[in-house]
Amino acid sequence: MQHTEIVEIRGHIMDTGVLARVLDDVLEYDGNYTIVQLDLGRHHHDESYARIEIGAEDSTVLQRIVMRLQIHGVNLVDPGIATVRPAERDGVFPDDFYSTTNLDTRVRVDGRWLTVQQPEMDCGLLVRDGTVRTIPVSDVRAGDPIVCGASGVRVVLSEPTEEAGGFGFMSSEVSSEKPQALQVHLIAEQMRQVRQAGRRILWVGGPAIVHTGAAPAMTALVRAGYVDVLFAGNALATHDIESALFGTSLGMDLAGGRGVPHGHEHHIRAINTIRRCGSIAVAVKDGVLTGGIMHALVETGKDFVLVGSVRDDGPLPDVYTDVIEGQRAMRAQLGGVGFCIVVATMLHGIATGNILPAAIPLVCVDINPATVTKLADRGSAHATGIVTDIGLFFEQLARELVPSYGHAG
Amino acid sequence: MQHTEIVEIRGHIMDTGVLARVLDDVLEYDGNYTIVQLDLGRHHHDESYARIEIGAEDSTVLQRIVMRLQIHGVNLVDPGIATVRPAERDGVFPDDFYSTTNLDTRVRVDGRWLTVQQPEMDCGLLVRDGTVRTIPVSDVRAGDPIVCGASGVRVVLSEPTEEAGGFGFMSSEVSSEKPQALQVHLIAEQMRQVRQAGRRILWVGGPAIVHTGAAPAMTALVRAGYVDVLFAGNALATHDIESALFGTSLGMDLAGGRGVPHGHEHHIRAINTIRRCGSIAVAVKDGVLTGGIMHALVETGKDFVLVGSVRDDGPLPDVYTDVIEGQRAMRAQLGGVGFCIVVATMLHGIATGNILPAAIPLVCVDINPATVTKLADRGSAHATGIVTDIGLFFEQLARELVPSYGHAG
Amino acid sequence: MQHTEIVEIRGHIMDTGVLARVLDDVLEYDGNYTIVQLDLGRHHHDESYARIEIGAEDSTVLQRIVMRLQIHGVNLVDPGIATVRPAERDGVFPDDFYSTTNLDTRVRVDGRWLTVQQPEMDCGLLVRDGTVRTIPVSDVRAGDPIVCGASGVRVVLSEPTEEAGGFGFMSSEVSSEKPQALQVHLIAEQMRQVRQAGRRILWVGGPAIVHTGAAPAMTALVRAGYVDVLFAGNALATHDIESALFGTSLGMDLAGGRGVPHGHEHHIRAINTIRRCGSIAVAVKDGVLTGGIMHALVETGKDFVLVGSVRDDGPLPDVYTDVIEGQRAMRAQLGGVGFCIVVATMLHGIATGNILPAAIPLVCVDINPATVTKLADRGSAHATGIVTDIGLFFEQLARELVPSYGHAG
Amino acid sequence: MQHTEIVEIRGHIMDTGVLARVLDDVLEYDGNYTIVQLDLGRHHHDESYARIEIGAEDSTVLQRIVMRLQIHGVNLVDPGIATVRPAERDGVFPDDFYSTTNLDTRVRVDGRWLTVQQPEMDCGLLVRDGTVRTIPVSDVRAGDPIVCGASGVRVVLSEPTEEAGGFGFMSSEVSSEKPQALQVHLIAEQMRQVRQAGRRILWVGGPAIVHTGAAPAMTALVRAGYVDVLFAGNALATHDIESALFGTSLGMDLAGGRGVPHGHEHHIRAINTIRRCGSIAVAVKDGVLTGGIMHALVETGKDFVLVGSVRDDGPLPDVYTDVIEGQRAMRAQLGGVGFCIVVATMLHGIATGNILPAAIPLVCVDINPATVTKLADRGSAHATGIVTDIGLFFEQLARELVPSYGHAG
Repeated sequence: MQHTEIVEIRGHIMDTGVLARVLDDVLEYDGNYTIVQLDLGRHHHDESYARIEIGAEDSTVLQRIVMRLQIHGVNLVDPGIATVRPAERDGVFPDDFYSTTNLDTRVRVDGRWLTVQQPEMDCGLLVRDGTVRTIPVSDVRAGDPIVCGASGVRVVLSEPTEEAGGFGFMSSEVSSEKPQALQVHLIAEQMRQVRQAGRRILWVGGPAIVHTGAAPAMTALVRAGYVDVLFAGNALATHDIESALFGTSLGMDLAGGRGVPHGHEHHIRAINTIRRCGSIAVAVKDGVLTGGIMHALVETGKDFVLVGSVRDDGPLPDVYTDVIEGQRAMRAQLGGVGFCIVVATMLHGIATGNILPAAIPLVCVDINPATVTKLADRGSAHATGIVTDIGLFFEQLARELVPSYGHAG
Repeated sequence: MQHTEIVEIRGHIMDTGVLARVLDDVLEYDGNYTIVQLDLGRHHHDESYARIEIGAEDSTVLQRIVMRLQIHGVNLVDPGIATVRPAERDGVFPDDFYSTTNLDTRVRVDGRWLTVQQPEMDCGLLVRDGTVRTIPVSDVRAGDPIVCGASGVRVVLSEPTEEAGGFGFMSSEVSSEKPQALQVHLIAEQMRQVRQAGRRILWVGGPAIVHTGAAPAMTALVRAGYVDVLFAGNALATHDIESALFGTSLGMDLAGGRGVPHGHEHHIRAINTIRRCGSIAVAVKDGVLTGGIMHALVETGKDFVLVGSVRDDGPLPDVYTDVIEGQRAMRAQLGGVGFCIVVATMLHGIATGNILPAAIPLVCVDINPATVTKLADRGSAHATGIVTDIGLFFEQLARELVPSYGHAG
Repeated sequence: MQHTEIVEIRGHIMDTGVLARVLDDVLEYDGNYTIVQLDLGRHHHDESYARIEIGAEDSTVLQRIVMRLQIHGVNLVDPGIATVRPAERDGVFPDDFYSTTNLDTRVRVDGRWLTVQQPEMDCGLLVRDGTVRTIPVSDVRAGDPIVCGASGVRVVLSEPTEEAGGFGFMSSEVSSEKPQALQVHLIAEQMRQVRQAGRRILWVGGPAIVHTGAAPAMTALVRAGYVDVLFAGNALATHDIESALFGTSLGMDLAGGRGVPHGHEHHIRAINTIRRCGSIAVAVKDGVLTGGIMHALVETGKDFVLVGSVRDDGPLPDVYTDVIEGQRAMRAQLGGVGFCIVVATMLHGIATGNILPAAIPLVCVDINPATVTKLADRGSAHATGIVTDIGLFFEQLARELVPSYGHAG
Repeated sequence: MQHTEIVEIRGHIMDTGVLARVLDDVLEYDGNYTIVQLDLGRHHHDESYARIEIGAEDSTVLQRIVMRLQIHGVNLVDPGIATVRPAERDGVFPDDFYSTTNLDTRVRVDGRWLTVQQPEMDCGLLVRDGTVRTIPVSDVRAGDPIVCGASGVRVVLSEPTEEAGGFGFMSSEVSSEKPQALQVHLIAEQMRQVRQAGRRILWVGGPAIVHTGAAPAMTALVRAGYVDVLFAGNALATHDIESALFGTSLGMDLAGGRGVPHGHEHHIRAINTIRRCGSIAVAVKDGVLTGGIMHALVETGKDFVLVGSVRDDGPLPDVYTDVIEGQRAMRAQLGGVGFCIVVATMLHGIATGNILPAAIPLVCVDINPATVTKLADRGSAHATGIVTDIGLFFEQLARELVPSYGHAG
């Protein structure tokens, strides 16, 4: 005895391999399929259409398969209407809650298709006052009306936009053997377009930006207006400030290029200095902090969200020590973001990938292929990975975007 | 015009290269030196003694050099007495606070040498009621008496103990090209000795333990009494529980070995299930969670500290979301620990290395040489790195330590 | 004005993504396509069939596309007969020679479909005496009749055999996060079956086998009959012999586990010793070499092919210093091989992948994911990658296959 | 009963850690030591002097220890005169032959100290006609007079020269977290100085130079006179030529940036085309090859040595297929070389490191830290490792050295 649903998908599903992945997923989730109808585009530029009957032994499994397929843009032919049930207690979803993708999603409530606000992965859907928005499990409150099952939920795959288009070539596979100079050029071009379109550029960075000597280049990018908001941890800010205060960063005398092996205590003194001021902004205002990336962000009035981790010393007074509060602060900065670039951080990169709508192009730059792969693997489908050297990447990006950069120095 | 101090060091400083590193550090920190006296051991087993005059242009620099040299076991010939000054405000040390190492440290107060309790890196020293203990900057309160400068502080380098001795050969350099079977055997031997000595074994683990199929082996080690306390993040516990509830772990069907690509939603359902129960322990008591590592820890009454990070989904109800509170919970578990093993986690491994006294042997196991190197670089001098496969490492360790393991399955 | 050909493909082309790759390749090679017919299997176990018209501006380009598609099992609907032209000079193919895949290939000559002998990548096809076989460019002689263009050539994709079946799960993606103990178990199972089927097991190994302390385990596998032929370079044999003669291997005292940093000269003395004997076999016979992998191979009468490289010292007298002659010696050993395992060598692994028919299962084991990926990327479609520790891999494989192993020691 | 020798060393042996390594080596080689005399420099700029008695149970072991210590610049106090014995047969040294370092070496023959010509590691010393030169074991002929034992051999450590000086900071440890822009600048500076001094610049390169899109930058460097000789394998030349002939390189359409997955057959056609011409130089002369690195080398009359490997297809007609002949061709190009840079190749990099005198500065550039580490580990003491992106490295080096570069394109 078998439960079934009929789903459909339209688009470039053949040459992109999407249909193959859909069928694969059905089997992986213990379902089976019958292809009811397939209208194949005959040429490369034609769209195709498939209608597939999905079967499973168990209706819970069937619902999970249907939810699962939505990440490929597959929807129920007869979507029905959304089932909404109240959360039974604070911080807990109903058992069969609809687990979100980060794709453009619509929910049918009261006869209307509502667009989900702030698409984000692994959340629930909260229906309230004629709107639907994602809600993380930690924010749900008892009684909150939550969408359950896949009925009444549609996912709309965005066509690759002009904006994202330029990066098509990069999304193939992660490799260090690619024409890197060309990639940097394309990222610069993308940033210019995003800025001209009046959207914000989000940077997510790790401390290697400072260690590789890229802080001056990044500072130049801040001052030239290519950094609207920065997500980072305690380490990037600390090493940047340590470098500004003492000229060292975790044992690296940057000006002379000589290593200061294990010169760790400098960073804890840097943290102590800023703690005395009360905040980075006050340290800038009081003339204690007079250079570096954080200084430039404060001076140009740009935003930053620093979220701590268990390995932190200090931390700096600006750091969120509660990671859930930190996530909320990050979410609050996503409005208007049109481009996201993650450099040299796995932790904050994955954290950002988790909350970023799929429609926003995301570029991940790291010298370690494993980091780039891991970020892409976490479901950020629009993620583009670049395996390259952080120091030279910044050097070249600054030369592309900041006319004066490299001429003075 | 030059400030000077005279320091001394005794021990196997020639063939270990310690003296070379001491002189190197003086120069790196912008000081200079004159070797006043050198009594060299003529043979391999003889100790040597050196007395060195350190000079610097600036007394602050000189103080920092002297503090720095203490990590090598170099102390002032005339240690003087400790300077103690009150912290001026909450969460801020005096400017010239003594920044701690994680070595055995003594402070001269009121004519007596007091032993520092809970040696930990990058802390201050709090003097109170005739005792001295480390205090992290976030815990200091206005008025707390804090040791300033290096005067009156001595560091005592422990001789390599019998306990640590077996690992001498491993501490040389990080490499995957070593006789791994021998290394696993030595670790097993070490664990047996630590347990016989009545001391606790601390594990720090990442989610790859589950992904590599090592959960059954680790579970067997828990049940056999070789895991006294576990430090981890939300991910290890979640994937372990997901695996127990759904038979998957981040897209990996472990029994069949087939990948479930991007089957992410299972983990958020696993988290939701435990959140409904209220805690992992309740989930075990209620029969919801019936297998895996966390289940075994609860059943055997062992401790665990889960500290969250910004990339977490959920998290599980047992997870500390405030990382500073998480650090405090970790510190509270260090009593009686005689051996620490870090497996497949950089984040929690570094966090543990930060708070662990240097005298406790620490072994770090990872397939990625960079992770192992980074952990060792953070100043955990007694850290031993092993680059190996996590799955096979656990398989073999369980076979060494648990007589019944591998025979049933 | 456009040149066209009609091709067809049958099999599990949808859920495997093969059709998507075929269409992709047409576009990459500057062609275009029209899907003339698509009979889609409705269920998972049904085969599908596609007929596609390929177009290109230029007939040379069209021919290259058609040849290219054959690696996916796509053939001309009307295959025609093979065009055969003589090579114009020694060591040079005709311009439009058919460049081979390593798949099962048939050539239509004189009204019959002949099966290509010794399928190998990047060769030409030599037609002679009613047979067709692959010939490397360096072996072709002026006047040799060589197949040109894709006409009259068909490729037959083998169904995944029982033999290869057990490894299906591994072929997905390269990762160190897999249940390794299970993988070793499956490889052991495979080796038993291959031996029972009377086929030979080919090993390709690098010097890390010795450095990781795995030589005793590999020696046990040789003596137990699981190594029929070994392909390696000068280094594996030298370090194995050095270890047997002096107890060291490139600076690693294996018994004691202590490093002998840069003890390089031992290996050149080991080489000199064997050169004095004249060959490894004579060194064994004369009682000079009394242990290790090479000794076991000689004593059990197994084959080995050592091919040198530009970085070699010496080399040992058994080493082919001419790499083209070395390739010929390797090809001569492929008869009867039913399974190939590459361990810890990129150079000889790729060399073997180049000449191995695709039908022979190939497993590549290395601790470095990049090596495993690179080997799979070189077109060895049936290659399975395992990222794991070499030492523990051998330890566990020997325990699985050699009953007495591990009990004595 | 114990054999002893007295050795001495002078120089900056304390703060460089050399003395510690010397004592360590004695113990590792099963010897023991007594420090007879130590005159320690009191300040950083003072030289020290040590006289050490080395003991061993066995005179062969003692001789090996003494030879071993010479790589640190330690010599016998009473050097005696060289023992010279004839090789007993072709290709075999006497048992106790002196195994060379790549350091500046002197041999006392007939009352005179002769300077060894072409210092190279792991060779023997051939005394003939009043000169001494290194000879590889494969080149020795029966009757050749070969130096045996360490008597009469002195090694002279060169002071770090002005030339090498600029790189001092880099030689510390391998890391990708260094100010890379500064490193590129220093290499450019070094190359200018070497050229002004009338010495040659040797490049050793792998195919990733082409894959990363760096061929135009390297071509510019060739034309600007910064590449005097290139050592490479079949792959670099083939991919460079494939790129020039077909616009692809192993599946990478470089102009458009799109991947041509597994487009392997292009490279075998490129090889076939050059084989038809007879050589790369003829292909240039005949107008078949009109661009790329190899074309530029031919046009500017620069040298190249291509040595094959067992994984090669083809190979190109210019490739040495016999690796020992290839080594001889490489040695013949070392005259006048004042700087060596190895980029993106482990195989040819190690091969070059093996034959290069230690006095010639060697820089190794690779994105993979393991490659850089391995090269340095092979005993090339003056090797400097840079972990960085190949594409951006070349882009920036060309901008530094070639005024017109980057302005036209």
